[in-house]
Amino acid sequence: MTVTAPVGFDAAGVACGLKSSGAADLALVVNRGPRRAAAAVFTSNRARANPILWSQQAIADGEVSAIVLNSGGANCFTGAEGFQTTHATAEAVADALQVSAGDVLVCSTGLIGQQLDRPKLVAGVAAAAGALSADGGADAARAIMTTDSVPKTVVVEGPDYSIGGMAKGAGMLAPGLATMLVVLTTDADLPAAELDRALRAATRVSFDRLDSDGCMSTNDQVTLMASGASGVTPDTAEFGRLLTDACLSLMSQLQADAEGASHEIVIMVSGAVTEDDAVEVARSVARNNLFKAAMFGNDPNWGRVLAAIGTTAAEFDPYAVDVSFNEVRLCHAGAPDRPRDEVDLSGRVIAVHIELHAGDEFATVYTNDLTHDYVHENSAYSS
Amino acid sequence: MTVTAPVGFDAAGVACGLKSSGAADLALVVNRGPRRAAAAVFTSNRARANPILWSQQAIADGEVSAIVLNSGGANCFTGAEGFQTTHATAEAVADALQVSAGDVLVCSTGLIGQQLDRPKLVAGVAAAAGALSADGGADAARAIMTTDSVPKTVVVEGPDYSIGGMAKGAGMLAPGLATMLVVLTTDADLPAAELDRALRAATRVSFDRLDSDGCMSTNDQVTLMASGASGVTPDTAEFGRLLTDACLSLMSQLQADAEGASHEIVIMVSGAVTEDDAVEVARSVARNNLFKAAMFGNDPNWGRVLAAIGTTAAEFDPYAVDVSFNEVRLCHAGAPDRPRDEVDLSGRVIAVHIELHAGDEFATVYTNDLTHDYVHENSAYSS
Repeated sequence: MTVTAPVGFDAAGVACGLKSSGAADLALVVNRGPRRAAAAVFTSNRARANPILWSQQAIADGEVSAIVLNSGGANCFTGAEGFQTTHATAEAVADALQVSAGDVLVCSTGLIGQQLDRPKLVAGVAAAAGALSADGGADAARAIMTTDSVPKTVVVEGPDYSIGGMAKGAGMLAPGLATMLVVLTTDADLPAAELDRALRAATRVSFDRLDSDGCMSTNDQVTLMASGASGVTPDTAEFGRLLTDACLSLMSQLQADAEGASHEIVIMVSGAVTEDDAVEVARSVARNNLFKAAMFGNDPNWGRVLAAIGTTAAEFDPYAVDVSFNEVRLCHAGAPDRPRDEVDLSGRVIAVHIELHAGDEFATVYTNDLTHDYVHENSAYSS
Repeated sequence: MTVTAPVGFDAAGVACGLKSSGAADLALVVNRGPRRAAAAVFTSNRARANPILWSQQAIADGEVSAIVLNSGGANCFTGAEGFQTTHATAEAVADALQVSAGDVLVCSTGLIGQQLDRPKLVAGVAAAAGALSADGGADAARAIMTTDSVPKTVVVEGPDYSIGGMAKGAGMLAPGLATMLVVLTTDADLPAAELDRALRAATRVSFDRLDSDGCMSTNDQVTLMASGASGVTPDTAEFGRLLTDACLSLMSQLQADAEGASHEIVIMVSGAVTEDDAVEVARSVARNNLFKAAMFGNDPNWGRVLAAIGTTAAEFDPYAVDVSFNEVRLCHAGAPDRPRDEVDLSGRVIAVHIELHAGDEFATVYTNDLTHDYVHENSAYSS
């Protein structure tokens, strides 16, 4: 059910020929109301794809009737022609649904620097509009997949409303945001400003903390749409918690399906002076190729952890730090502690805990290992 | 001849048993004078190995009689016991050469977090002191190798003086500095302050611009020693040029021997507002795993270049940028230009040129591709 679990949403996923494989490549999610409040967060990359440029304008008034997403091409660095394609896509949705094009968000994902086939895309929108259904969430989730091996979906039930979501993303998973498209829906009745606040708080500790390969996309977009169809205006703290749960679930699904990865690595930094320091320290490890390759080799190489965090500006004494792998402390106060062979890293999930002994703040960053399959998939992607 | 090419230097390289393979693992380079001026630059990593902590003190007065270097262990994060090992090494050199321990620099390279075998090291120093010779430069260069496949050496001839050098480093090659130990010698007669100025200027555009894998070492040290044995005080501008040539040669040798690499990649950024901007832009590409994997696949994926540089704070318009591979412009003003198949990336060296069209400054950063062999070597190194 995914995005169609909350009342008031229809969705569809169709194949319009953008993918040479013939797989589904166009998804449409429509908010039937009665409310059409929405919020979105976008990639912090300065190189922004045409659909990002479009959607940032369309979301400005906090009102969204529909979102259309295509895989099979990112429509990024495609110039004026590419922007016109995005515009034409929104217009096609507007025509089919009898709404304003200015209330239609557009997302694209795939290779950068190639024009999308506009006629196929416009025809696909018409087909998707004809296939819209309150059971269409699963089809939509499949249509946005690129190198994803499985669709990613979530439903979180509140007391008298629900939140649904779908996500795609398997590579270029890095902060602000990961390379992904996410659509979240709810039948709660909340104004756009409240949705925006809740969405930013939720993404800050979920998608923004996923740093699979240090690479930031040009096309990221996380959209939250509220139909108000439940007639319930929830407590904002409760809604925020449930929305964060939904985002964390989708984030974990993205991490588990990261291209070529053989481990999901959870890097927890505690004892930091500030939360920003904790994030900076955790991210320096998440982005260190030598550390990531060691994880692939099931080698609890804590020296590489310390070498990585020594490059940060965070406030701590490198010779006071403890490092544990899967709860076995291998380094205490910057010197060897338990023997390495007490650690077993053969499981899929690896927990790295770095205690800085400098303060009381903490943060968690989620990453993956650096594997042969990662190199293979990303050396062969576009050629 | 390497470090023993300039007059006034003896060197030796011996096996003292730190490497289980029995290969040479201890090098000694001695300045016989008449001058003993020296300068050194160190890793900017806050996690600094014991030999770095020692050498920073020893170089403070600008006078150095000898430098001793061991492979087979980094002596980093080894606590007080590790520092005592470094101290004992310097004392052993001082005893053997009848100099002050405070004029002996120490360098170590190898795995972090393991104690060095102090008795073996001290015995090795005695053996090396006995083997010192004006022809010992080649032996010394071999004794500092870790995962290096070849020794790296250089000799640059001035009009009436010379500069010699040796380097080791094959992984953790990243800025400020690359993971490497470098010893440079000259028989020019220059005071320590002049050596320091020349060395900082030379490393800034050579070793500091090598960013093979984004990982910064805890043990980097580049040392320049001047014997004054030529009796010549050179023009400082000329000496600076020759020293930079020597550093660039050693840097290129490090890049060409980087662990598992199949390409040397030269990233040239022009049209920047400041040199710092140019370096930041070039480095963002050099550190992007998706770009590096594409280079391994001989895929001129300019979209990944633009996605990478979009993450920087440098001053430029992402939609004004040109990107060329091996002098074929694939992206002009942020849109597709020449067809990708006009580019042949099958050669070992790849030149990427990014024209920002924002100013007149430029910089070059040197990197390598991300390969299966890199993952293999670094997942198996310590286990």
